[in-house]
Amino acid sequence: MLRGRWVLPGAALGLGAGLGLGLGAALAARRRAEPDAAEGLLGRLPVVPAVAAAGPPAVPGSGRAELTKYGLPGLAQLRSRESYVLCYDPRSRSALWVIEQLNRETLSGASDRAACDFQEDESVHEYHRATNADYRGSGFDRGHLAAAANHKWSQAAMRDTFYLSNIAPQNPHLNQNAWNNLEKYSRSLARNNKNVYVCTGPLYLPRMEADGKMYVKYQVIGKNNVAVPTHFFKVLILEKESGEIELRSYVMPNSPVDEKIPLERFLVPIESIERASGLLFVPNILKRTSNLKAITAGNKR
Amino acid sequence: MLRGRWVLPGAALGLGAGLGLGLGAALAARRRAEPDAAEGLLGRLPVVPAVAAAGPPAVPGSGRAELTKYGLPGLAQLRSRESYVLCYDPRSRSALWVIEQLNRETLSGASDRAACDFQEDESVHEYHRATNADYRGSGFDRGHLAAAANHKWSQAAMRDTFYLSNIAPQNPHLNQNAWNNLEKYSRSLARNNKNVYVCTGPLYLPRMEADGKMYVKYQVIGKNNVAVPTHFFKVLILEKESGEIELRSYVMPNSPVDEKIPLERFLVPIESIERASGLLFVPNILKRTSNLKAITAGNKR
Repeated sequence: MLRGRWVLPGAALGLGAGLGLGLGAALAARRRAEPDAAEGLLGRLPVVPAVAAAGPPAVPGSGRAELTKYGLPGLAQLRSRESYVLCYDPRSRSALWVIEQLNRETLSGASDRAACDFQEDESVHEYHRATNADYRGSGFDRGHLAAAANHKWSQAAMRDTFYLSNIAPQNPHLNQNAWNNLEKYSRSLARNNKNVYVCTGPLYLPRMEADGKMYVKYQVIGKNNVAVPTHFFKVLILEKESGEIELRSYVMPNSPVDEKIPLERFLVPIESIERASGLLFVPNILKRTSNLKAITAGNKR
Repeated sequence: MLRGRWVLPGAALGLGAGLGLGLGAALAARRRAEPDAAEGLLGRLPVVPAVAAAGPPAVPGSGRAELTKYGLPGLAQLRSRESYVLCYDPRSRSALWVIEQLNRETLSGASDRAACDFQEDESVHEYHRATNADYRGSGFDRGHLAAAANHKWSQAAMRDTFYLSNIAPQNPHLNQNAWNNLEKYSRSLARNNKNVYVCTGPLYLPRMEADGKMYVKYQVIGKNNVAVPTHFFKVLILEKESGEIELRSYVMPNSPVDEKIPLERFLVPIESIERASGLLFVPNILKRTSNLKAITAGNKR
């Protein structure tokens, strides 16, 4: 099978043949990251206090603070906006997860989608940022994670959903049909309950290939190598008027999905999403309530 | 080409055919995450203060705190141990990056590698943790990110390098030859300078396939789907006695590398690693010094 060369931005990698050849970008000439952009990554989180003392206490003189003298190269990149809280994944150029709160208030209003444009998220360092050009001609839609129509209550909140940090490359048929139906369903639940907390994100699931081994494989698009998820998850935390909490968790493949298939067919155990995504939902929810009811295909049938 | 089914742990996904079939694990019966494990993920970072107000200020009543009522599903998982500070990636079941500080002191001592065993990192939630069983029969070595031999100064420090959170699946030939030589070279630099800060991590680089599109593809091993990096990076920050800071950044493929190839052939511009890894090094270093000299293949030739 024809295989291209591994691509390291600014370098051409020949497998096992040394990597030093053909390096065009001299560091001396590189465009320095602006101080503001650097602040964006590390400036917002407390660096030393955030270091968990998971191991044994430091030997006197071993110098934990000294160890991080030149900073930590990456930490969680949280963005809190009108309509959502988001954790950015600089490697995939998209979000790890986005949380919204939906209720009758956020769903009502006159905000106009036509007044919104997809925009680069300038709070993300330019090395790790998706651009509209990355999506152009890719064959993928700019799929919202936090949906625009969830935030009619405020033009600013709706506009915030158009940052490309809240967007992932999505199959157009999925985006416009089955996934859209799942978003509409989330809104209908929000109208009939006290609150619905919605957490949405990408998945990169493995599958077995002909050699019997498991591989994760996903396309990347554009100059910035924006990752195309293999699947998307949506976790709905329903707060009922009664105080009961109901959990519904869905996964859809990033490919055309027949919209005639009932949405409940896409319910999966929350544990599956927790394992595959590297995230945890249930332990946090259980800190707030003991009145949790989970709806999955497994216990509905 | 024969293609297996996507695998979501605890669920079988049929592309476009609904996902609700064959779900064995009922949530009701699932083993609850222990409170301690949940604390491990979210308890160590300040949740609310860490949310950056990158967007416009909240409209009164829009309730930022309310939005995160049920917690944030994932944040940076830092571990600070005797020998290193590490940022864990729960999705890949390995580290995003590991930083060590090497100098004459850390390199001298009588610590014995034979007294160390590879061990699960119990500070990581069991859903996201690699086990020794995952590596068994995989054909990959348990490759250290922070190297054991860098920490002869303390048996505890050496032992800490054997947590599987500091390990990634590595080609045995690479681990035992060229990569080992790079580790030895790091130590020789530490003996001849004031300090060497070493940051090591995995890369998952894209390459072009026959269809002309770019893909990231990597194997996952074991029951826990531990990700096999396509490449590894090592960034050396040399503190010279003169006060000058020198930066050397290397990338090696996770495959057999002829150890006769000089190490400098694996030098790459730091920008390449920054773009591909989603991390930033230079902005942090520039906060501490204006006396930075970078060594890359690009400006050595």
